[in-house]
Amino acid sequence: MDTAVTLADLIAALGGDLLGAPETPIRRIAALESADAQSVAFLANVRYQSQLKTTQAACVIVAPALAEAAAQRQPGAAVIVTPDPYLYFARLTQWWARQVRPLPPARIHPSAVIADDAQLGQGVDVGPLAVIESGAVVGEGARIGAHCVIEARAHIGAGSRLAPRVTVGFDCHIGAHCILHSGVVIGADGFGFALSQGRWEKIEQLGAVRIGDHVEIGANSCIDRGALGDTILEEGVKLDNLVQIGHNVHVGAHTAMAGCAGVAGSARIGAHCTVGGGAIVLGHLSLADHVHVSAATVVTRTITKPGQYSGVFPFDDNASWEKNAATLRQLHAMRDRLRALERKE
Amino acid sequence: MDTAVTLADLIAALGGDLLGAPETPIRRIAALESADAQSVAFLANVRYQSQLKTTQAACVIVAPALAEAAAQRQPGAAVIVTPDPYLYFARLTQWWARQVRPLPPARIHPSAVIADDAQLGQGVDVGPLAVIESGAVVGEGARIGAHCVIEARAHIGAGSRLAPRVTVGFDCHIGAHCILHSGVVIGADGFGFALSQGRWEKIEQLGAVRIGDHVEIGANSCIDRGALGDTILEEGVKLDNLVQIGHNVHVGAHTAMAGCAGVAGSARIGAHCTVGGGAIVLGHLSLADHVHVSAATVVTRTITKPGQYSGVFPFDDNASWEKNAATLRQLHAMRDRLRALERKE
Amino acid sequence: MDTAVTLADLIAALGGDLLGAPETPIRRIAALESADAQSVAFLANVRYQSQLKTTQAACVIVAPALAEAAAQRQPGAAVIVTPDPYLYFARLTQWWARQVRPLPPARIHPSAVIADDAQLGQGVDVGPLAVIESGAVVGEGARIGAHCVIEARAHIGAGSRLAPRVTVGFDCHIGAHCILHSGVVIGADGFGFALSQGRWEKIEQLGAVRIGDHVEIGANSCIDRGALGDTILEEGVKLDNLVQIGHNVHVGAHTAMAGCAGVAGSARIGAHCTVGGGAIVLGHLSLADHVHVSAATVVTRTITKPGQYSGVFPFDDNASWEKNAATLRQLHAMRDRLRALERKE
Repeated sequence: MDTAVTLADLIAALGGDLLGAPETPIRRIAALESADAQSVAFLANVRYQSQLKTTQAACVIVAPALAEAAAQRQPGAAVIVTPDPYLYFARLTQWWARQVRPLPPARIHPSAVIADDAQLGQGVDVGPLAVIESGAVVGEGARIGAHCVIEARAHIGAGSRLAPRVTVGFDCHIGAHCILHSGVVIGADGFGFALSQGRWEKIEQLGAVRIGDHVEIGANSCIDRGALGDTILEEGVKLDNLVQIGHNVHVGAHTAMAGCAGVAGSARIGAHCTVGGGAIVLGHLSLADHVHVSAATVVTRTITKPGQYSGVFPFDDNASWEKNAATLRQLHAMRDRLRALERKE
Repeated sequence: MDTAVTLADLIAALGGDLLGAPETPIRRIAALESADAQSVAFLANVRYQSQLKTTQAACVIVAPALAEAAAQRQPGAAVIVTPDPYLYFARLTQWWARQVRPLPPARIHPSAVIADDAQLGQGVDVGPLAVIESGAVVGEGARIGAHCVIEARAHIGAGSRLAPRVTVGFDCHIGAHCILHSGVVIGADGFGFALSQGRWEKIEQLGAVRIGDHVEIGANSCIDRGALGDTILEEGVKLDNLVQIGHNVHVGAHTAMAGCAGVAGSARIGAHCTVGGGAIVLGHLSLADHVHVSAATVVTRTITKPGQYSGVFPFDDNASWEKNAATLRQLHAMRDRLRALERKE
Repeated sequence: MDTAVTLADLIAALGGDLLGAPETPIRRIAALESADAQSVAFLANVRYQSQLKTTQAACVIVAPALAEAAAQRQPGAAVIVTPDPYLYFARLTQWWARQVRPLPPARIHPSAVIADDAQLGQGVDVGPLAVIESGAVVGEGARIGAHCVIEARAHIGAGSRLAPRVTVGFDCHIGAHCILHSGVVIGADGFGFALSQGRWEKIEQLGAVRIGDHVEIGANSCIDRGALGDTILEEGVKLDNLVQIGHNVHVGAHTAMAGCAGVAGSARIGAHCTVGGGAIVLGHLSLADHVHVSAATVVTRTITKPGQYSGVFPFDDNASWEKNAATLRQLHAMRDRLRALERKE
């Protein structure tokens, strides 16, 4: 990511008030502590204000309240002042990525296998050895990576980007401006069986998956198709890697889930929720909007109020853990013994 | 899944006693609460009997005990009476899937790379860009999806279906009528190393994987090959997505595991067990037949008796959890203090 | 793995002192308890010494202290004496694998799609339908499996082996003699977003992934690229299947992680650590060298001392668990009640 721009270029592209020399050259974005004299860095959290004194950054992005402190850190130090430095940083990374990794021109690679009746919009890019089946629709400017499989009648929205090796199952619908990373599987069968005399009889999964706009799904995550109705991810949902979404789950808009989280079938997650890494939501539960589930927590009943919820066994050195964990098996009995003592008072 | 059949068609295909007009048109299968006047729905659990009063379903599938209540829900309402409505529903979905998604005729896609000495049975379907290596055997009527890799000498049983992008490692054996979903990896190396002076020396995994008939494995799940002997999944095993089965594990017949479950090396799981989502079974343990492990439970010792086993930290609002979790580190000490008080009585 | 060698062949290849007839034929490696008269087995743990009496193995590999006991188990029984039998066993499996699965000669499969300016070293093998993009470098003797995607400017070290269907993202660097199993995704975007008015603004991930020599990564595991700097796995790291490594994580040399483990962004794991299956390390934490995290433990704060750490709710039969888990919600209150009683003494 070595490139050379000036602070003037940044301001022209992203706005913000510049204190300092516009011609200052910038070659990289960096964290405050690892920044060098050709870096731009940001300070979003007042807690790290002390790093201003030691950073070598050529320019620091700060909120108005810290502008003075940032400017005084050393003679001639540049500052970009903006109401939300972290958001500015995010947009800076986007702009930067366009400079250092300009998209190659769209092409349909000749090795791709594309059905005659698949519909590809203008400017669609199809990578080597991708497969696009009958009746699939790929919207304008979408990019289908190498080795992707877009099954029959699936729909990929305009401007979406599928990394290499993504599977989108038949009849599934991906919105516009989505990003699906490598290994994502959209529309595998949900896990549904009827038990009959000790054997599992398959319930064919007749629904599909519908994903809204601006959704991002991490590597090797799975979104199963619905049993009867559809599995739904609303607009702006962000899922990390290795996340499992069961059949008929509904995830509300702008909800984010960290790596290895799992949501069992027919659960309904509200909008603007966060689910920590490795957390599990059991089937058929509901989570209200603005519910935040801590990492590795297992949600075993419906949550109707916004807030932060947790449930993790505190780790300890092994010997201490063993003693406490063993005692845990007597906890209910301990409560009874405590009561008995209290009654004797 | 919009199609049009009559109740007479259903009864002809699946049996059951029909109360009502055979010519009633049916366009979809639905849940009781979302059914409309062209839907068939089912009621398998007496708990939901009250939904009979409000459902709009044209026809409801019920057990004999509920036949009368179902028939009286509205004038002219149709009912299918059958001993096991959920099983009937499962078979209905299977029949329905065949109507709405008839299998295309089998073909060997010209882009597939198939070794000269691979053996393909009658009616085998091979999708675009699949790879079938030397000495592999694919049984009659099996369907190998796009981008699958069947390595040397692997065996795929008759009638099995591999979704796009499944890897079956060399020498591994998949039974008949299995379903492997996208991203499944059968026969990667088990995790075996000998520690020598702080470095890990690889133990080559010389076994393979053997999978019985009627096994289904969910998207992105992994079944490792054995170190010396084989990793074995018996007949009728059902695994959900993102499940990890370590080397030399033995899973008994008709056992089912939900998403993100993991079984460490050399564990032996009985028949007719269920393992909940995110649960973990440690290595070298045994679980008896008919053991049921709750979601997210960590099985740390052998289980010799059938039954339901659980071990999850109860989640709570974050503040309450923090207080209780912190106190947990003192639990053993609390027990001692409780004893001390009891002795003083 | 049926082949026929003699003990003399083993000794010639691997060393060790042989007690017994060099011409003894060996057809397989086996565990002591399942060994037959044409098997070689090993005994690494004195605890299993009693199995010497019953094993049918033609030859047993033991440490000097057990040589006599092993030789006396039956008349004419062979023994290989070596200081570290488990290490000898590991090397034996490696040697054995070379006998029974000799590598086919390297070839560039004509169906692979290789950019004109990709650099392939001597003896590189490229499987069917692999994709190697512009500027990628593949070192001498490396083997790229079927359906792998090596993105632009990625580097694969000499002698590394990629199983079928591995993705290595642009600019990522894999060391020499690494093994990446099927479904591995190196260099997907890290999970980084800035929250702005209820929406997630993407932080482009401008770093890459750097992996040292002799690293092995299990099936369907994911190593995300860094946000600004790189995600780093040092030499000799071993990861099992379905492991998630977040952006900017640093894993020290010779650390091993079992299946389904997850490490959140910017965590720093020391060298010579082990992380058990399903364990989670939260973001931005540090683990010292030689820290061992038990399976399914959630590490929620930095660990500065070597040792074993655990935190798992002990499982129980469901009824007992329910009682104890419910009481857990009152634990802090119980502590207060206990204190109150103590004060009254």
